[in-house]
This record gives sequence, C-alpha cells and structure tokens, in this order.
Amino acid sequence: MVGIIMGSESDYRVMSDAANILQELSIPYEVSIVSAHRTPLRMVEYAQAARGRGIKVIVAGAGGAAHLPGMVASLTTLPVIGVPVKSSHSTDGWDSILSILQMPGGVPVATVALDGAKNAGILAAQILGVSDEKIANRLAAYKDDLKRKVEKMNERLNQPQF
Amino acid sequence: MVGIIMGSESDYRVMSDAANILQELSIPYEVSIVSAHRTPLRMVEYAQAARGRGIKVIVAGAGGAAHLPGMVASLTTLPVIGVPVKSSHSTDGWDSILSILQMPGGVPVATVALDGAKNAGILAAQILGVSDEKIANRLAAYKDDLKRKVEKMNERLNQPQF
Amino acid sequence: MVGIIMGSESDYRVMSDAANILQELSIPYEVSIVSAHRTPLRMVEYAQAARGRGIKVIVAGAGGAAHLPGMVASLTTLPVIGVPVKSSHSTDGWDSILSILQMPGGVPVATVALDGAKNAGILAAQILGVSDEKIANRLAAYKDDLKRKVEKMNERLNQPQF
Amino acid sequence: MVGIIMGSESDYRVMSDAANILQELSIPYEVSIVSAHRTPLRMVEYAQAARGRGIKVIVAGAGGAAHLPGMVASLTTLPVIGVPVKSSHSTDGWDSILSILQMPGGVPVATVALDGAKNAGILAAQILGVSDEKIANRLAAYKDDLKRKVEKMNERLNQPQF
Amino acid sequence: MVGIIMGSESDYRVMSDAANILQELSIPYEVSIVSAHRTPLRMVEYAQAARGRGIKVIVAGAGGAAHLPGMVASLTTLPVIGVPVKSSHSTDGWDSILSILQMPGGVPVATVALDGAKNAGILAAQILGVSDEKIANRLAAYKDDLKRKVEKMNERLNQPQF
Amino acid sequence: MVGIIMGSESDYRVMSDAANILQELSIPYEVSIVSAHRTPLRMVEYAQAARGRGIKVIVAGAGGAAHLPGMVASLTTLPVIGVPVKSSHSTDGWDSILSILQMPGGVPVATVALDGAKNAGILAAQILGVSDEKIANRLAAYKDDLKRKVEKMNERLNQPQF
Amino acid sequence: MVGIIMGSESDYRVMSDAANILQELSIPYEVSIVSAHRTPLRMVEYAQAARGRGIKVIVAGAGGAAHLPGMVASLTTLPVIGVPVKSSHSTDGWDSILSILQMPGGVPVATVALDGAKNAGILAAQILGVSDEKIANRLAAYKDDLKRKVEKMNERLNQPQF
Amino acid sequence: MVGIIMGSESDYRVMSDAANILQELSIPYEVSIVSAHRTPLRMVEYAQAARGRGIKVIVAGAGGAAHLPGMVASLTTLPVIGVPVKSSHSTDGWDSILSILQMPGGVPVATVALDGAKNAGILAAQILGVSDEKIANRLAAYKDDLKRKVEKMNERLNQPQF
Repeated sequence: MVGIIMGSESDYRVMSDAANILQELSIPYEVSIVSAHRTPLRMVEYAQAARGRGIKVIVAGAGGAAHLPGMVASLTTLPVIGVPVKSSHSTDGWDSILSILQMPGGVPVATVALDGAKNAGILAAQILGVSDEKIANRLAAYKDDLKRKVEKMNERLNQPQF
Repeated sequence: MVGIIMGSESDYRVMSDAANILQELSIPYEVSIVSAHRTPLRMVEYAQAARGRGIKVIVAGAGGAAHLPGMVASLTTLPVIGVPVKSSHSTDGWDSILSILQMPGGVPVATVALDGAKNAGILAAQILGVSDEKIANRLAAYKDDLKRKVEKMNERLNQPQF
Repeated sequence: MVGIIMGSESDYRVMSDAANILQELSIPYEVSIVSAHRTPLRMVEYAQAARGRGIKVIVAGAGGAAHLPGMVASLTTLPVIGVPVKSSHSTDGWDSILSILQMPGGVPVATVALDGAKNAGILAAQILGVSDEKIANRLAAYKDDLKRKVEKMNERLNQPQF
Repeated sequence: MVGIIMGSESDYRVMSDAANILQELSIPYEVSIVSAHRTPLRMVEYAQAARGRGIKVIVAGAGGAAHLPGMVASLTTLPVIGVPVKSSHSTDGWDSILSILQMPGGVPVATVALDGAKNAGILAAQILGVSDEKIANRLAAYKDDLKRKVEKMNERLNQPQF
Repeated sequence: MVGIIMGSESDYRVMSDAANILQELSIPYEVSIVSAHRTPLRMVEYAQAARGRGIKVIVAGAGGAAHLPGMVASLTTLPVIGVPVKSSHSTDGWDSILSILQMPGGVPVATVALDGAKNAGILAAQILGVSDEKIANRLAAYKDDLKRKVEKMNERLNQPQF
Repeated sequence: MVGIIMGSESDYRVMSDAANILQELSIPYEVSIVSAHRTPLRMVEYAQAARGRGIKVIVAGAGGAAHLPGMVASLTTLPVIGVPVKSSHSTDGWDSILSILQMPGGVPVATVALDGAKNAGILAAQILGVSDEKIANRLAAYKDDLKRKVEKMNERLNQPQF
Repeated sequence: MVGIIMGSESDYRVMSDAANILQELSIPYEVSIVSAHRTPLRMVEYAQAARGRGIKVIVAGAGGAAHLPGMVASLTTLPVIGVPVKSSHSTDGWDSILSILQMPGGVPVATVALDGAKNAGILAAQILGVSDEKIANRLAAYKDDLKRKVEKMNERLNQPQF
Repeated sequence: MVGIIMGSESDYRVMSDAANILQELSIPYEVSIVSAHRTPLRMVEYAQAARGRGIKVIVAGAGGAAHLPGMVASLTTLPVIGVPVKSSHSTDGWDSILSILQMPGGVPVATVALDGAKNAGILAAQILGVSDEKIANRLAAYKDDLKRKVEKMNERLNQPQF
C-alpha cells in the first residue's frame, strides 16, 4: 500500500522510522533502494508502475541535492511524501530541504521535517485514512497515546525525587 | 471536501491559487479565515469539527511564525497541507517555511514550496485521487497538459523570429 | 508566580536553567510539561487559567517548529517569554528561533537567545521587579555579582602562572 | 512609564508603531533618540537614570549591528524590549535580529519580530498589566478586537461578490 | 556542439547569455526547453541521445528545486554545466544553488554562479578548448579584451571630469 | 593531464578523493600545494604555465575565503574545477562554497559539492572524455558500476535477515 | 596615502563614500580600477608596488566572489581594508562578506560592513591617526559631530509639530 | 602598545592566538577581561583611557551578541579590531560575525574571520608597521616564512612514501 524508497542503503538509518510507524499502525508497506542519480531508468519504471502495482502513497527520502522525491512526483499522480535526510558533507540539511520542498507549480511533493521519516509514515497513514475509517481510528488512538505520554512526563516531573 | 484556511485576508492573494486549481479539477472546497493567534478557540473548533463535517483534506496557509498548519494538524487526524506564505517584514519566508515544516515526531504537516498554494491544491487532489479514480484521471490529464505546454514553448523557441 | 512550561521532558535539560535562577532569586515558580502539538487542549486550558491561578509571567521553551510560546501568548494577556531550544534534527536552532520570534502584530512573545533559559528566568524576575522593589534589589545585587566575577577573572589572568 | 528609544531618526518610521499602540492602550510613554555608537555616554546616562525617573519598561529599536537594546539592558534592572529594525544595507535584518537576541547569560533582552515595534508596545503593556488590572483589561479588550476583525474578514470572504 | 536546455521559456531571460557568448566565440549551439518535472521522459531521451547526436557539452539552467542539471548528468557521460536561476517565489536562489551544486558522489554537475549563464557559455568553450586550439585562442583573446576594458575604465576614472 | 592543487597539506584529506578516482579511471594527474594567499606568485606561475606543460584540466580545492580556484581561472584558459573544502573555523562551508561559486562574468569556475573532490575527478574525466573515446567508455562503465551497486543494496535489503 | 581600489567601475557607486570621507578628513587618496579576475597581473604589480609608492593603507571593494582584498593582502605588508559590495545577482551580499572576511591564518583583511565604504575610509584614517596626532584630532572632531547630529534629531523629535 | 580585551575568560582559548603572534613579532601587548554586558562602565573607562595610556590598537574578541568591539570603537579614535568568537549555544558564529561586522556609518570595526585571533594580531602589527619600519620588516619575514612552509609541504607531498 505504501512504497518507501530511498537513494542509498545509508539512508535506511533514517528511513526505517517510516517503516516502523507503518508497522505499528498495521499498514502494509515495501522498501526499495531507488537512486535518482545512479539508477535513473529504474526510478522512471518504479514511478510509472507504482499506481498499477497497488501502491497508494510513495514515501521518498534523500540527502544533499535530493532529486528522488520530486522526480518520482513528476512521473505519477500518486501523492509523494519527501523526507529530507541530513547527510554528512551536506550543508547541514539545507540542500535536501530546499531541493525537495521548492518544487515548481504543477508537481507538488509533501515535504516533512529534516530526518522526519516517522512523520512521513504517519502522513501516509493519514492520507490512507481519508477513505479508510479503520486507519483513521488507529491514528486517533495514536494521538491519544501521545497525550498520555505527556501526562506521564508531567507526573514524573512533579514527583519529589525529580 | 477540501477546507482551505488562512490566518488573514491578506494571505488570500497567495491562497486563491489553491482554490483556483481545485475549481479547475472540479473538486469542491470551502475557504475560511481562521487565525491561530487571533482566534485560537475558533481554530480548535474548526480543526476538531472538520472530519465530522465531511472535510477530507485541509490546506492551511500562513506567514511569519506560521502556527496555523501545525496546530490544526495537532487537533485532527486528517492530512494537513501547509503553505508557507512570504509576508512583508518576514525574514524572506524562512520563518514561515521552518515553522510549518519542522514539526515534531507524531504530528506531520505536508509542506509545499514558499507561496506554493497551487501545488497545495494539486496535492489535495492527489490525496483524494488515491481512492477516487475520476480525480486521478483528471490529474493525469493535467500532467499531459503540462507536457504539451512545454512542447509549445519549444516550438515557439525554434521559430525563426524568436 | 512564574509558570515554566515546555513541550517535552527532554527540554528540561535546557529549561532547568530558568528554574535554577528563579530559585537563586527567591522567586516562586512551577514547572509543567505542556505540549502544543500533543496536548493542544491541555495547552488551551493552561493558558486560559494561568492568570486566574496567580501566574504572573509564563516562560515557555520549545524546539523545532516551536508553537508553544506563541500559542500560549494568543490565549492570555500575561507576558510570555519564549526560549528557543536547539534540538537534535532541528536546522541548528533556526527553526525554533524563527517560529518563536516572528509573531504577527497583536501577539508578542518576549524571545531570548537560543537555549537561553537562564535569561528567561532573569527576564521574568525583571518583569516582576517592575512593581516589586525587593526583586529589583536582588537583580541589582545579581548584576554586582556578575561584575565581581569579571574582576576576579581579570586578577586570575594577570597572575604570573596564567 | 514606557521609554521608547532608537538609534536614529530614520528608525522612527518603524518605531512609531510602538508609540501608537501605547497611545491606543492609554499608557504614557516618551520617545528619545539615543545612539549606542554615536552617543555612548548619553546612552549610559539614560539607562542608569531610567528607573529613578519612573520609567518601568524600555523599548529599544536598532538596525544592523544593533547594540542599543543589549547595552541598555546591561545598565539597568528594568526589562528591556528589543526591536530589530531592517535597515537598508543590512543583511536582510539577520544582523539586527542576532545582535539583539543572542545576549549572553545574565543580561536578557526581550526580543520581538523584525520591525515588530507594535508588538514591543503590546509587550510593554503586558508587563505593566502584570500588576495593573486596568491595563490587563484593556489588553483583554484588544484581544477581543483582534478576534472580531477576523470574524469580519470571514464575513467579507463569504459574501457573493468576493 | 553545445546543447543549452532549460525548464521553461521564462528561464530564457537568463539563459540567453549562454547562447550569446557562444555566438560571440563562434561555437555552434542549440537551445531547447526540456523540463525535468513536466517532461521527464523527454528529458531522459534528450540526455541519452545527446552524445550520439554530436553534443559535446550540455548547459542546463533551472530555478527553485532545480533537478534538470543533475538528472541530465545522471543519464550521460558528457560534462553538464548547471546554471542556478533566481526565480520569483524561490528562497532568493539558495534553492536552485543547492539543488544543482550538492550532487552525490559519482554524478558531478559543473555549477556556475547564480544567474551565471554567461560563465556557463565560457566554461563550455573552455571545455571544448581543451582539445581545440582555435577555441583556446579565441578564449585568450576574450581574456585580453576583459583586461582592456578594465584599463579603459581606469582611464575614464582618472579623467578630470569624472 | 590533470593538475590537482590545494592551498594546504591539510586539504589533502579531502582532495585525495580526486586523485583516487582519476587513478581508478587510468587518467594521469599530478598533485601540488599552491596557496593563493601564502604563495601568490607561485600560483601565478603555476596557472600561466599549466597549459604549456600539458595540463588539460585543473582541479583546485580550498576552504574558508577560497580564492585559489577563481584566481587560477583568471590566469589560464583551461577549465578550472573548484572544490569547496569544509575546514574547521569556517562558517560550515558556506564561505568556501560562495567564494568559489560566485565568480563574476568572464571567469567561470566549475564548482562541485562541498568536499566533493571525487566528483571533481569525475568531472575532469568527463571533460577529457569529450574528445577521448576511451575515457568516455571508462566513464560509461563506471556509471554501470554505480547502478549495479544500487541493485546489490536492494538485494541485501530484501533478504530476510536485514 | 590611501589607495582605494575596486574591481569595476560599477563598484564606484558604493566606493565613492570612502573617497568622500577621506576628502572630508583632509587625507590624500587615489582611486584605481584593479580587477583580481580580469587584470590579475596588474593587481600583483599594484599590491607589490604600493608600499614603495608611499601608499600606507589600501581600501579594496569587491562584490560576489570577492577576491581582490584578500589577494592584495597576500602581496603586501600594508593593512588592507575590505569592503563587501552587494551586487545584483549576488546571494544578497553573503558571497562578498564571506569571501572577504574568512581569510586563512597569516593573511588578514580588515573587513567592514556590507557596502560600508564610508567606514572603510574612517578606519583608514584611524590607522593613519595611530601615529599622526592631527588626523586623530580630526577624528575626535568627527565623533563630536556625530554626537551633535543625534542631539539635533532629539530636539526635532520633541518639537510639538513632529 | 596593543590592548587585547575579551568578554570572558572562556574566550582566552581563542584570543591567546592574538597574544602569541604579537609575542612572536616582538610587539608589546596587554590582556584584560572587559565585558560590555557585565562591566559596561569598566568598558567605558577602558576605551576612553586607552589612547592616553599609550595603547595604539585594540583587539577585542566576543561571542554571541558581541557588542564589545563596536562599543569600544564608539568611545575611542583608535582602530579597533574585532574577533568574532564561536561560542557554544551561539547560532554557529553568525551572531558574533554580524554583530561585530555590521557597524553603522561613522564607527568602523576592523573585523577578522570567525575565531581569527591570530589574524587580529597580525593586522595589529600591520597597522603599527605603517609607521614603524622594523615591524614592517618582521611582517615581511613572516610572509617569507609562510611561503617556505608551503614549499616544504610540497616536498613532503612529492616524496615517494606520502
């Protein structure tokens, strides 16, 4: 249902957060390495075939001059979520943020925070939850859980030994 | 189906692009002024009621310290698309980009380019198109149109009088 | 008298500096975890109740897309001091600085330096000191102390063994 | 009650917003030109005398390498609100933002948004409102007014002729 | 010999400088509109066919999230020169600079200055001049010309009426 | 054939990547320390003599206020590839990026990514490959190799034990 | 006594401020166009001859990748004052600031503010005033004048009609 | 002859480089801790007395909102060299660079690179060398030494075992 792609194995350190949260929300996903710059034709095939193969949302992570999310978005009508990855030798992540975010009119990429793969997974779930009540309910439960965690932090903070 | 909100009338100059492209794609939408900082309670009500009222995607635009998209996202399980608006006296739009994009884990905002309201509308359509074949087809036609426009530019460029 | 809030336990590493300096200046305070994005309704309640509960100044710290200080400011007439926290995966703190500082006309946040929780505590004391002579005197003594510390540095520097 | 200072006549274009909102909130103020770099001794005198003269909050605006707010803060125990002014030939306002905001531990400046003199005036009123119920009530009325303005925008937006 | 491409007609305002300097240096060139995001397949064809068609250097200009130069570089072994174009609504050109410059290891783009299409043309000539003595001589003459222009400026500056 | 220069021994940590990839592609090169600021006259000699000595492309790396690539480019008609080196005490590499990239009209430097010496080597090979079929073939093989590496990553990723 | 140089006639719009203030302070100066990138050998000659010709301080202005101040500093033991000039197509002046300021250890450039040619002239006077009592006195008078101008602004501001 | 000042003992880690190079060039200096924000009156005294005490150049280092160099410059006609110090919790040094560099017209600070205390010492020597032939000769010898070090690096690099 969700296709998670990234340009290199080394991005999996960040991108596994997307896989993990989708697992937690019981949403099927697949993970592939697709590089815009090293396997451009494979990227074209992946993007063109995705809708037909039953993929509904694509999550694409990349660092530096990050062209993968935008190029995939140019080749499909599916929503594409872009995750800017902060790689070593990058300009502190600004390069990946801007090359994913600043897409021209006509070809949007839904960009999340730097290294925000977890939020990419949640956003994919929200997109599926638009028409799938069960996923929407799981997201509501997840939100409740976030709230409870803050309440527990508060209790810990106000215990004498803090 | 799509709820377009913004913090001030003055943002409509940018945000009307979202309304126009949705119109073009025959997708129903509504437009409201909801300010995170001037009408915080109204914002809470809007966000909490949206799903129940049949809204499926929210497009939220804001400038400067742009809290509207992220706060609405914290109050609904619907996907929220954020449009950073470049306002006068802002720090060239960096403030709105970063305060919309850099959401903490758990509460994503699907951020588009600076002043990218048109792309926000297209992204909303893509999200609806995940489960609505007709919208997906209209998006495919829109993509074809983009291609044809480039081909026409090319013809003009190669005419002798250019 | 002073309400110190932050979005997560992990911010306490920075925000404890505010608590410590208020302690040193004998000003009562309370500390709570209130998250704009994970507990938005609790945040609304906190901000609306603060003045009535006798809170006079609110110190709010947050990282990334830091909406807590500004949202609390939208819900109270008390002065709100914002502390941008430099969190991992943030864009080096620029996101929290800009999303706290660049508030729109009508809803100010008194922003201090990146990770400047100590100064937030001192600023809270200065605000209380406007109408409380005793606090003002303690601040004057604190300023004298800063001066004496510089003088001692100077002596150390000019000792032969330096 | 509120002392508004700025480094040059040319800053009055921005800083008059602070005077105007204080006027609107019926809070007495005075305006002076005090330059950190051209009249450093006058600045020392101003800052040292302020509290004794009955000033309760200082609003200081400056552009470029903006030292006025921080230097005044080093010479008084009053709260000092800093307004970064975007001047021509500055680096787009980043210089004034950073040289006002990033004060060292011990000497806070309550910084507001770039060219945010109006918010500086409101923040000054909030500080006075901590111990002055009348001012607090006027601020609450001001907040109601902001809300009503948004509601009116909404009505205009939904009129057929929009 | 030199293929000049750009994503949109509107970039021609900047990119015509490349054409003009190549004309001046008597180097044949062709100009096409090839959009990475609107005509991705046409871009793949262009890049794959370029070497076979006798193109020796590609000059590619693009603004915003500028993927054209890098994607073309991924599909050819020819040297690709990238021109970051400062477009309206971009983040002052930083987006195009970083998304062209920060290419990952293996796929270089020879990046020139913001809006530096003239230098892209000269660089293309220098690349051809590596093995073509005539072009190298024209470049040497061009350099002499630059020098003479500075000398003339100097004479004008030191004339009494300056 | 390729002259690799850098301002200091300490840059060799980064610049050796250029040497290594040229070695891998069987392209002869030489390495020298030439400092714009400490040996300006040696730099002038190096740049003026390069073409005559048979150098066909110059790769120049430098950090901070990085003048070496641009100054060498002003003294030769050979293509000069600039490598911005991220040195300690630099402003995160922005200084070297901008002082290499933003050359004035007339004197281009082919700039690659921050610490992108490997890409500088590949770009040098591409430039030589314009007129040397053997090098072009080696580059095509190198590109195939990049593709195969991605395919292997994909296999590893989809093995059960990943 | 003071040599003012710049890379192009177009910089004179900014650099004339240095000439004017030196005139006002009765300090002899000369103005020349010396381009690091278009007349590198002339620049070497200028820098090497300056001390012998009686020049005591060099003021060098340049925009973009601004190498002139640093390169001249590498070729003389005279103090060199660098003026970053904000040129069109530059990255808002950051390129000239960083390529003048961030000089490596051993070769300083005394950098002044963006477009700060007036301050460059004053700094040149201060350097000469170290050993020339008359110039020091003129500078003290100039400082008095700055003070008086602020006092006059203050008087104007407090007149009823303001 | 040279007065080295800094805001805190902790800056000595950087500022000792200025002392060391002056020692190496046999130029007398003194070191003091003078804080603009913690000892503003001591700073005024220091700056006003400096010329009379025989100080000829002031080297001032500071981090964050670095007001010391500019404020001292406002109180003396001596040349003031500013050293931006990169402190923890600063915004990567941009705050100190901009608050030292961007001085308003009338009050220059000769700014050197981030953490560039060594260059501040050399610049101080160059300023003294304008009228002191012996210092100028030592600077010429220092420059020769820089050149020889580069030559040695070159020899090492070309030894077989490198």
